[in-house]
Amino acid sequence: MIKIGVCGFGTVGQSFVNHVLAYKEKIIKNCGRDICISIIADRSIERKKFKTESIEFTSDILSVLDSDCDLVVELIGGTDLAYDLVKGAISKKKSVITANKALIAEKGEDLFELSNKQNSYIGYEASVAGAIPVISSLEHNMLNENIISISGIINGTSNYILDQMSSAKKSFKDALNNAQELGYAEADPSFDIGGFDAAHKISILANIAFDIKSPYKNMHIEGIDSIESMDIDYASELGYKIKHIATARSNDSQIECKVHPALVNKKNILSKIDGVMNAVKIIGDKFGTSMLYGHGAGGAATASAVVSNIIDYCIHLDRKVKSKPDSIGSGSRELVDIQNISNQYYLRMFANDVPGVMADITSTLAKHQISIEAVTQHEPFENEKLIPVVMITNSVRYKDILSAINKIETMDNIIGDVNLIRVFNDD
Amino acid sequence: MIKIGVCGFGTVGQSFVNHVLAYKEKIIKNCGRDICISIIADRSIERKKFKTESIEFTSDILSVLDSDCDLVVELIGGTDLAYDLVKGAISKKKSVITANKALIAEKGEDLFELSNKQNSYIGYEASVAGAIPVISSLEHNMLNENIISISGIINGTSNYILDQMSSAKKSFKDALNNAQELGYAEADPSFDIGGFDAAHKISILANIAFDIKSPYKNMHIEGIDSIESMDIDYASELGYKIKHIATARSNDSQIECKVHPALVNKKNILSKIDGVMNAVKIIGDKFGTSMLYGHGAGGAATASAVVSNIIDYCIHLDRKVKSKPDSIGSGSRELVDIQNISNQYYLRMFANDVPGVMADITSTLAKHQISIEAVTQHEPFENEKLIPVVMITNSVRYKDILSAINKIETMDNIIGDVNLIRVFNDD
Repeated sequence: MIKIGVCGFGTVGQSFVNHVLAYKEKIIKNCGRDICISIIADRSIERKKFKTESIEFTSDILSVLDSDCDLVVELIGGTDLAYDLVKGAISKKKSVITANKALIAEKGEDLFELSNKQNSYIGYEASVAGAIPVISSLEHNMLNENIISISGIINGTSNYILDQMSSAKKSFKDALNNAQELGYAEADPSFDIGGFDAAHKISILANIAFDIKSPYKNMHIEGIDSIESMDIDYASELGYKIKHIATARSNDSQIECKVHPALVNKKNILSKIDGVMNAVKIIGDKFGTSMLYGHGAGGAATASAVVSNIIDYCIHLDRKVKSKPDSIGSGSRELVDIQNISNQYYLRMFANDVPGVMADITSTLAKHQISIEAVTQHEPFENEKLIPVVMITNSVRYKDILSAINKIETMDNIIGDVNLIRVFNDD
Repeated sequence: MIKIGVCGFGTVGQSFVNHVLAYKEKIIKNCGRDICISIIADRSIERKKFKTESIEFTSDILSVLDSDCDLVVELIGGTDLAYDLVKGAISKKKSVITANKALIAEKGEDLFELSNKQNSYIGYEASVAGAIPVISSLEHNMLNENIISISGIINGTSNYILDQMSSAKKSFKDALNNAQELGYAEADPSFDIGGFDAAHKISILANIAFDIKSPYKNMHIEGIDSIESMDIDYASELGYKIKHIATARSNDSQIECKVHPALVNKKNILSKIDGVMNAVKIIGDKFGTSMLYGHGAGGAATASAVVSNIIDYCIHLDRKVKSKPDSIGSGSRELVDIQNISNQYYLRMFANDVPGVMADITSTLAKHQISIEAVTQHEPFENEKLIPVVMITNSVRYKDILSAINKIETMDNIIGDVNLIRVFNDD
């Protein structure tokens, strides 16, 4: 009999308990073991209506560590109390399932080191892209070869906002308000639209797929707040959609890992992921291109991923070998500094409509060894004298394009800042 | 040390051996056990250049059963010798990995029954949709709840042909020739374009996801050969793409399982799967909508899926419980007869351009309790007197629409047959 202690009884916690109770027989069959929920802890448990005999309730989260449960399901979030809880559980040789991406991305190394020593299990399928079985697929199916890249649309809020700006022609602000009304964005949306949520998730995937320590603290993180409606239109004319992309790729002995908005070619399957849906595209040198698509958030979807880890935990119990690859937390490979990562770039700027402006821009770029692969000029925008100039460069290092942009921004006939957006390419 | 015997040394067999030799260390790490390829059997092994010390070669496939290998990798195809080989292996308590969809779909029940008795392992991830980890995801992540439906584009040849007819405006014949030139279609393409390959695959998935015996022998199987370019154009005007869809869904105590071309709404992610790519969309009552996308064929991709089953086999060796759900081969649920399955339908027919034709058609449909949800009339086609009439009906049973079509085809002003294509809907 596996006794499960559930910590955190909010949306996901309640969905998890309901799922386990509703499908207990299926889960037991898949586990090959009997299971039960022995204790539920939530700081405000008194206010939450839930009646089941034989389940103990407590408002003291850490008291679960003193109970006789074998498996702690951590659904409280945050990195303080959650860290104490998970570390405490592993110290007592209990195993852990968590949906907490911040905890794994920021403090996973410590926890995995300890769990290896204690032969405890840490399952965190739900921490990345909700119900999409990406961690399971990596570990069970994809890590028998070299992974070339992992690229994902893994923040539903950002994807919804960009999709609304594109398909419904909404402004960023209106799209954000709309997302908040529908419950797709928090009252303070900065964690999602600033790219931090996606950065946690890609850090976890990079950690699994490549031999690298969690890149979260040192990686380039850029959100979608610099994207304007005109950029979406101009990108579309050039054959691209603008998506918020989290990507990690192997580059010789180093790993590139970053999150940012990007122009994605309309032929690339990632350009076709709409609404709040999530998708992770993985390229291996043998299986080729694979993509997993689904709900990245929501109580029932997230809980379903937590439940899938119960089966994984039972497999861990049986196995004579470690169920996690050694690479987690080891990290012999290094993160490339964003300044040295090469990309194609979309540049959009406003110029006075006078002769010679384009020649000045192109010669400045040429001095930095940057060539232009596509350029479009548009009708004057707002102010009749200013024309929007849009171009796509060849692939150059970030520091080189920044240096060229600095020069361009000092030109008399260039008004305001140059807006830079990376062009995504995983061919 | 796990000793592997490889039977069949064609494209997939050679890719498999190369994959294992190239990534032996990774695989051993993931297995937690040492592995080696001990014997390779192929009827024409003499003609195949491959030199490795310590691997025995034979042209006698069944002699592998007498070798000391633990795991037989069956890559010879067909259902005769392959059946003898797999049955023989399991009888000797060896385990089996196979990429053979025909074998599993047509003779799996026997083999699973025997393997349960012998506690042998049968892995067949590669039999459905190549490198897409759909069987693994179902078994590890998705079977802890009710699966509502599984719908896939799982025949790359058919998808390529339909995509070329749509995107490159090719005729069926030209698209097929093109597919053959590129190696995407066999010289005799009937197995792919007739829908049989997709039927094998969906039978296997239905067998895993629902408690049903392999439906292959009794299910509705329809290929893409009735699709004409004009249908693709008319469907597009109505907001649909035509795709070849294999689908299984739970319907109370019964299961619907069928393969056929279908109009897929352009907003449905399955409409966006282009070229030879495969995708399987699975809807669960908790995780919601999930889709797995990737290469459904090709030596390296298929071999990668075979390799993933080696890890699964090692898990099987460790586990005290059966690693396969009981449902495989049991089958308490029944297949719905196609005559009783309800669908919306696209109907396309040619009518003489005379007053009253539309009224005759609609009143005939109305007599069969069939209503029309959309109708379009087009410019006369080929013969100036004939106008193409296109309509989409409400959802009715197949036998009712067939009965109405029979009446319509006898009308004086309807020339030729009515072309019926199902409308796919998994909302």
